Formats: sequence, C-alpha cells, structure tokens
Amino acid sequence: MSALPTFADVEAAARRLKGITVRTPVLENERVNAMLGGRLFIKAECLQRTGSFKLRGAYNFLSQMSEADRKQGAVGWSSGNHAQGLAEAARLMGMKATIVMPADAPALKVANTRASGAEVVLYDRVKDSREEIGLGIARKTGATVVPPYDHPWILTGQGTAGLEIVEQAQAASATLDAVAAPCSGGGLSTGIALAVKGLSPSTSVHAGEPAGFDDLARSLATGTKQTNEKLSGSICDALLAPTPGDVTFPIAKQLLGPGLVVTDEEVLDAMETAFREFKLVVEPGGAVALAAALTGKLPVKDRAVAVVCSGGNVDHATFIRALSRRST
Amino acid sequence: MSALPTFADVEAAARRLKGITVRTPVLENERVNAMLGGRLFIKAECLQRTGSFKLRGAYNFLSQMSEADRKQGAVGWSSGNHAQGLAEAARLMGMKATIVMPADAPALKVANTRASGAEVVLYDRVKDSREEIGLGIARKTGATVVPPYDHPWILTGQGTAGLEIVEQAQAASATLDAVAAPCSGGGLSTGIALAVKGLSPSTSVHAGEPAGFDDLARSLATGTKQTNEKLSGSICDALLAPTPGDVTFPIAKQLLGPGLVVTDEEVLDAMETAFREFKLVVEPGGAVALAAALTGKLPVKDRAVAVVCSGGNVDHATFIRALSRRST
Repeated sequence: MSALPTFADVEAAARRLKGITVRTPVLENERVNAMLGGRLFIKAECLQRTGSFKLRGAYNFLSQMSEADRKQGAVGWSSGNHAQGLAEAARLMGMKATIVMPADAPALKVANTRASGAEVVLYDRVKDSREEIGLGIARKTGATVVPPYDHPWILTGQGTAGLEIVEQAQAASATLDAVAAPCSGGGLSTGIALAVKGLSPSTSVHAGEPAGFDDLARSLATGTKQTNEKLSGSICDALLAPTPGDVTFPIAKQLLGPGLVVTDEEVLDAMETAFREFKLVVEPGGAVALAAALTGKLPVKDRAVAVVCSGGNVDHATFIRALSRRST
Repeated sequence: MSALPTFADVEAAARRLKGITVRTPVLENERVNAMLGGRLFIKAECLQRTGSFKLRGAYNFLSQMSEADRKQGAVGWSSGNHAQGLAEAARLMGMKATIVMPADAPALKVANTRASGAEVVLYDRVKDSREEIGLGIARKTGATVVPPYDHPWILTGQGTAGLEIVEQAQAASATLDAVAAPCSGGGLSTGIALAVKGLSPSTSVHAGEPAGFDDLARSLATGTKQTNEKLSGSICDALLAPTPGDVTFPIAKQLLGPGLVVTDEEVLDAMETAFREFKLVVEPGGAVALAAALTGKLPVKDRAVAVVCSGGNVDHATFIRALSRRST
C-alpha cells in the first residue's frame, strides 16, 4: 500500500470490471461544438449502473478482498453515489453492506441504496463524524471499511473510465488536449489521470470543484493540502469532501493540471444544456466539469476536450430548478 | 420500388450509416427489472445525433440520390424529428433543405432544424395540407421530396436501429422475446421489424401508439388501413400521422404483432421513469413503447424485451410536467 498505484493497476481494474460495469457512451453535439469552436466530448457516466461512476471503484475494491473478509461484510460512508455503488457492488458479490449517509442526502440516493439491500445509517453532516460512525460499525461487526476515494483500489477502479475516454475519443478520430472530471476527494480525477496519462501523456487532466469547496484547486496551487471552510451549502451534494486524500493528493500533484472552479449557477446552466443538447440527466456534482467547459474556464476552442458527467442521481425538484432557468 | 424492402436492404443501409449515426447504447436497470420480473432493455435513440432516430432514414435516403438530384436540394415535412434529421443529413451531404413544419411543433425542434441550416416553412396542422405545401416547393425548386416514413430508403434506414438492438441484447446474453418501437406512420417499427425478424425470427415486434392515434393498431386488427379521427390533441406530438403508409402497412401486416396503445398519462409516467432510473431525457412520442412495457401492456415478466426510446426533443415545460407527477 506504500507505493502509489500505477497505470497497470488501472488496466488490471478494467479486467475485473469487464461484464460488470457499462462501457458508457462518449457523446458529441454539433451545435455545442459550433458554439465552443472545438470538439467537446461528454463521457456519460450518469448512464453507469447505479447512476454514477462509483460502482467502478467499489466493485474493484470488493473483488480484491479475501474470501474471509467478504463474509464479514463491508461498511462505507458517502453522500450518496458511493453508497449506491458500494451497495450494488456488495449485492453483486453476495455480501452484506452497511452504509453511513448524511441525513440531507437526496432522498432518491437513500432509497436506491436501500433498494440494493444495504442497511443505511443516517448522520448529521455538520455535527457528526461519518468516519467515526463507520469505524465504530467496522469494529463491532468485523466489516471492512470501503472508503469513498482515498484508497488505491478505489481510485484505480474509477480510472477505468479514463481508459474508455481515450479509446472512445480515438474511435471518433480525436486526440484529446484535455480531460476534466468532477472532484470531491479526488478518486475519480486521479484515477482518470493515471489512465489518461498512461495512454496519452500530452493530454492535460483537470479536476472540477464547486466554488467554496475547491480544496483540491487551492491545494494544487499552494502545494500543500488545504481544507474547505464549510461542510455543506453547495448544490453539488456529491462534492463536499473537506480536503484531498492522503493517497489521492500525491497523484494529483504529480498528474493534474490547475483546478477548475465553478459556481452553483454555472452548474445549473450546465445541467440545462445536458438536458437540451445531450438528452442526459446529470446531477449537480456530475456537471461541474461540463460547466467548466461551457463557461470557457476549461477552453475548448480549437481543441478536443472530454468532460466526465459523473452521475445522474438528482432529485426532481433540483432538476426542475435547472430547467426553469431557460424556457422553450 | 414495387418490391417490398428486405433484410438485405437494412444491412446495406447500416453500411451507409457507418461513421455517420451513433451506435446508441442499450441500457438496463436492476430496479426496473426487479419490478417487472424480467429483463427490459432500452434502446436509447434519444442519444442519437439530432436527438432522435430520424437521421438514420434521412441520411440513408439522401446518400442514394443521384448527384444531379442532390444539387437540387431536398424538401420534407415533419412534426419535428424528421425535420431535424433531414436538415442535419442535408448539412452532412452539403445539400440545401427546406422543411415544412407544423406551427404547433415544439419550439426546440423548429430552432434546431434552423440551426442545421435548413429553411423552415410553418403550416397549420388542422387547416393546411403539409403534403401540398411540400409538393409545391418541390415543383417550384426541383427539390426531391424526402418523405417522413413511407419509402423503402427511409424505413430501411430506421431499421438499422433494429440490427443494433439484437446485437446489443446478444452481447448482454439475452435472446429477445419482443421488441417494441413508437409508431407514427410506421417507418421505424416496420424497419425494425425487417431487421429483427431477419436476425431473430421468433422475436415478436410491436408498434406503440398514443390513444386516439392508434390507426396502425386498428388497421392491424381489421386488416385494412384505418384513419384517426383527430389530427392533433395528444402530448405525443411526433406520433400524429393519420393513417399507415402504403409502403409501411404491407410490411406491418406481415411482420408486426398486435399494436400497443397507451394514454398520455402513461406516457408522462414513462418519461418520469426514464428520468429517474435511466437518466435519459425522452420526449412523449419517444416514450410510448417504454410506457407499454411499464404498464404491462407489453409483458416483460419472465421475458427479455427491448423498447426503443426514439427521441428526446422535448420542451422544458412538458418535461417538468412529467417530473411533477412524482416528487422525491
């Protein structure tokens, strides 16, 4: 566990996930390309099983546990998408799962986690420590903690999306100048960086974050781990991790370009564009990289750029709020 | 033109469309499958270029025109999706296109048709004859009429989606018991029937229609072409053709199983399910086959069934109406 994970670990994860995860499509839109003056590709991970990329890392983790450990079950904490990914991975492996979720997580994410057969324990995002609750359950039951991002098995699983992005862009005759993914603790963005840099070293990889929760962007700018002042308050409920991970940050420093920071308003606009032009349901946290591309913070002009739309588990009211910003 | 098109014509169309149309994904959802007690596959043609399947038929048609005819341009009439598909196909071929569209077509469809460079002529769906207007333009300009459904080149182009469905279901280890597609004039459903029956003769193929506009279902039941009483009034703006086509009906009689008829309320519920479970934006007319599966009118229990979600070009207000039927 001391050595950082490598490109070969992402390739190994891809072999484990074959037949389990969906090779989600990469979509392009003529009107959006004309508007941006370049080629924008969307990796539609909202179409992944469980509605987000999280099944990749969770299944990759569980499939590397010993048989004895699997019998004791898994425990995890998550704002929702890791919860659903882990619960479904456990169901597929025939394992028991307990998930610690914030009480203000979207109702849909809580319901879907339960639908996969997991036990859900709710906590207060501001008052309680989800780590303490989860570790307590692990001690009591012998279950293995499956962290949301800060583990080589998790981030290399998420990185399999990056392998697909490069291959799918090549199939569309594009060599990518840049790839961007949403970032909470950095599992997806660093995993994708490992994959993309392994296949296409000259492609820059960026992590997108909501304004006020840009711990990684500030950590990359200063070279040391920074922490967010607030623990809640963005529409991007999936992207509120307070600080970069101990495993993810060293990889981020090595492989990621400057961070991309977008406002909640820009995220809502990106969700509306995903609806109107790409016919995709994208949740707020899933739309930050797209928002960066649409606002020019991640330049697309005269370039080929791929953004990951990482999830689609959004409440009806929030989606209606996004659509209501523009009428037709 | 006298002989009916065949499976080989669909295969030839697939070769013409290679690299032009998207091989749209076929999606499956564990919760929906558990609810229905079988395997339901969604062919996500809402993710096709132009937001619907219509590019398949239009491009297949234009690519078989003579070079001399192509220089004279194309003219078509459509409630919206054929308009966008034809306009984009013409743009890709470097041809001029004129599109006759109903004045009550979704604003989004009109705007997108213009964005592809086509000239749009609006007409009154109840008072005017779109055929007369379109034929008048053709006479005046020498442009070739590209019909919305009733032509072998159109329906065999649409049928390429059926080839993909069978192959994609096989890749998911499923042998399909039934396939269903939305139906207006029958181009998509008969084209898919040619494809599916060619690859998998025991699979039944069905056309879905909105209540009150079920001319094909009644025509199949009686054996002779029936006509709808109304010309407008369903939320399914894409499915209001008054009667089966002269080319499509003989194929429908030969290859289609009993028609499936769903209400506007069932369509709105299906759109909400597509949003919540599949993260797809599906327009009302695109959701009729899904609605038939979700309501049990097309049984899924203990079977493998594929439904085409044929388009996603829906106005914001209509989509919000669908989402508002269920809160989370």
